[in-house]
Amino acid sequence: MQSTPKDPGRETLVRGVLDGDRLSAARLMRLVDDRTDGHEEALDALFGHTGRAHVIGLAGSPGCGKSTLADGLIETFRHRGRSVGIVAVDPSSSLTGGAILGDRVRMQRHAADDGVFIRSVATRGAVGGLSSSTQDIARIMDAMGRDVIIIETVGVGQDEVEIASVAHTVAVVLSPDTGDAVQIMKAGIIEIGDLFVVNKADRQGADRVAKELALFFQLQSIENPPAVIETVATSGTGLEALADALEDHHQHEDPGERRDRMRAEIRRRIAERVTERLEQELAVAVEASLDSIEAGRSTPYATVRTLYETFSGGQS
Amino acid sequence: MQSTPKDPGRETLVRGVLDGDRLSAARLMRLVDDRTDGHEEALDALFGHTGRAHVIGLAGSPGCGKSTLADGLIETFRHRGRSVGIVAVDPSSSLTGGAILGDRVRMQRHAADDGVFIRSVATRGAVGGLSSSTQDIARIMDAMGRDVIIIETVGVGQDEVEIASVAHTVAVVLSPDTGDAVQIMKAGIIEIGDLFVVNKADRQGADRVAKELALFFQLQSIENPPAVIETVATSGTGLEALADALEDHHQHEDPGERRDRMRAEIRRRIAERVTERLEQELAVAVEASLDSIEAGRSTPYATVRTLYETFSGGQS
Repeated sequence: MQSTPKDPGRETLVRGVLDGDRLSAARLMRLVDDRTDGHEEALDALFGHTGRAHVIGLAGSPGCGKSTLADGLIETFRHRGRSVGIVAVDPSSSLTGGAILGDRVRMQRHAADDGVFIRSVATRGAVGGLSSSTQDIARIMDAMGRDVIIIETVGVGQDEVEIASVAHTVAVVLSPDTGDAVQIMKAGIIEIGDLFVVNKADRQGADRVAKELALFFQLQSIENPPAVIETVATSGTGLEALADALEDHHQHEDPGERRDRMRAEIRRRIAERVTERLEQELAVAVEASLDSIEAGRSTPYATVRTLYETFSGGQS
Repeated sequence: MQSTPKDPGRETLVRGVLDGDRLSAARLMRLVDDRTDGHEEALDALFGHTGRAHVIGLAGSPGCGKSTLADGLIETFRHRGRSVGIVAVDPSSSLTGGAILGDRVRMQRHAADDGVFIRSVATRGAVGGLSSSTQDIARIMDAMGRDVIIIETVGVGQDEVEIASVAHTVAVVLSPDTGDAVQIMKAGIIEIGDLFVVNKADRQGADRVAKELALFFQLQSIENPPAVIETVATSGTGLEALADALEDHHQHEDPGERRDRMRAEIRRRIAERVTERLEQELAVAVEASLDSIEAGRSTPYATVRTLYETFSGGQS
C-alpha cells in the first residue's frame, strides 16, 4: 500500500484503530470497501485484538422495524455504559441506489455521541448476501473497542441466513404486519434465531404471532425454547428486556458455536474468491462455451465439467 | 448406472421422458434428487430437446399467496389447452420437516389430470437457494413436452433471486399483508420482476401497493414499466389477465436474456461443485486451520489465502 502524508500507512491505521481512533477506523473501512491492496494485511494485524465485542445480528422481513429497533438498542446499551457500533447493510440496488433508506436517517441523531459508531455497507449486488466486508467492518469496530456491535440485515435474500455465521446472537424480528409466523417458519428463517422479537407489539395480531411461535416450539418439543420478547421499538417498550435477553444469550454461548462461525466464514470467503475468479479469469472461456451451447454443440452440464476441471486442475 | 429389470437403464428413461411418460420422468427426477451416477448423462441427452416450454417463476414473500396463485394458473393454462408442470420449492428445514406445507395440498386436486405434473424439490438446507435440481427438474418437464412450467419459490433467501437465472418470466407477487412495496423495493427483489402481481387485491391496502409500484417505476424514469396485475387468487379474479401478461412477456423476450440465464447457470453450477469440494476434500484442512486460528497461530484471512491456493493450484 502506498503511503502519503494524506494517506497514512497501514501500520499507522492499525495503531489508530487499536487506540479507538474513529478516523483511522473509517479510513480502514474504506480500504476494505474498495478492497485496496494491503487492507487484508491490516485485518490480519487486527485479528488478534478482536473477539471481545458482542456481535448482534438483527434479521427479519423488510418492514418489521429492524432499523427502529437498532436505533432503540443504541440508546439502551448506551444507558448501560456500553459503546456501540452499528453496521447497516444496504441493498446496493442499481435501481434504487439506496435513495429510499430514509428510515435509517433516524440513527444519525447519535452522530454526536462518541460512543456510537455507525457505518453502512453494501450487499453484493442484486444477488444479496452479506459481503465479507460486513464482517470485516464489524471486526474493525471490535478491534477499536466497541462493546456491542449490531448488524442490521436487509432482511431478504442470502444476508438473512448468512448473519448466523457472523453474529454471536441473532435476533429474528417478526411483526404483525409482515406475514404470519407460520410463513416465517416455513421459510427456514426460524433456525437462525437465537431469540425472537415480536415488534409492533401494540398492534392487532401481535399476540397471535407470539402464540404461534410458542406453539411452534412446543410442537417441535424444543426443550429450551428461545426467548420471545415483545417490543414497541417506536416507544422503547420492551427494549430493556430485549437487551437483557441478548446479553444473557451471549454469556451462555456454547464455545462450539465460535468454531462453527469461523468454519462458515472460511468457506464463504473461499467461495467468494472462486466466484471472483470465474468472473475474471474464466470469463472468456465461459463466453466461448455459451457460443457452443447456443450452436447446439455442447450442454451446460458438459461445460461445467470442463470448466471445473480447468479450475481445480490449474491447467487450462 | 446399474440397470436392473425394476430400474430401467438411462437410455430407456431418456426415451420415456421424450415420449412424455410420467413414470420415466418421475424416475429420472428421483435420480436427479439423489444425484445418482448417470443422472447427468441423462440430462445431457435431454438437453437438445429442451427450450420449448415457457418457464415461469413465482417470487414473493411467504404469505403473499404464491401457492394459491400457482394453483389458479394451472386451471387457467389448462383451459387454454396448455399442459402444465409445477415445481414447488420446499424448504428442507430440519425443524419443520416440511410438515406445515398444507397450503400446497390444494394443488393435488389436479393429480388426476394427465396434463398436470406436480413435483416438489428441496432447497439446499437452511442456507436456501434454488438447488440446481430445481432447474434440472424443470428441464425434464420441458423435455417431456410440458407447455408451461411454473416454479414456485419459497420466497425467502437466495432462491428468490436465483429464480431469475432459471425462469423466462419472473412474476414478483406482493400483497397488502406482506410488508409494503417500498420495503420490497429496498430489498432489491424488484429488479428480478418481469411483471408484478398484487394479490389479495380485494383487501385493504392493495390499491396502495399498486400505486407505490407505479410511483416507483415513474420515479426511476423506467420507459416501459413492467405490467402490474391485480389478482384475488382464491376466487380466480385477474388470473386471465395474469396469464396473458405472462405469455406476452415470453413472446417478446430479448434473445440476450437466454444467454444471460445460461451464463448464470454455469457460474452457479461451478460454485456448487466448489462448495461441495470444500465440504468434502478440504474438510480436514479446514478443521486443522480452525485449530491454528483458535490457538492464535493464524487468522481467517491467512487461512483463506492458503486454502484457496491449494484449491486453485491443484497442489496440496
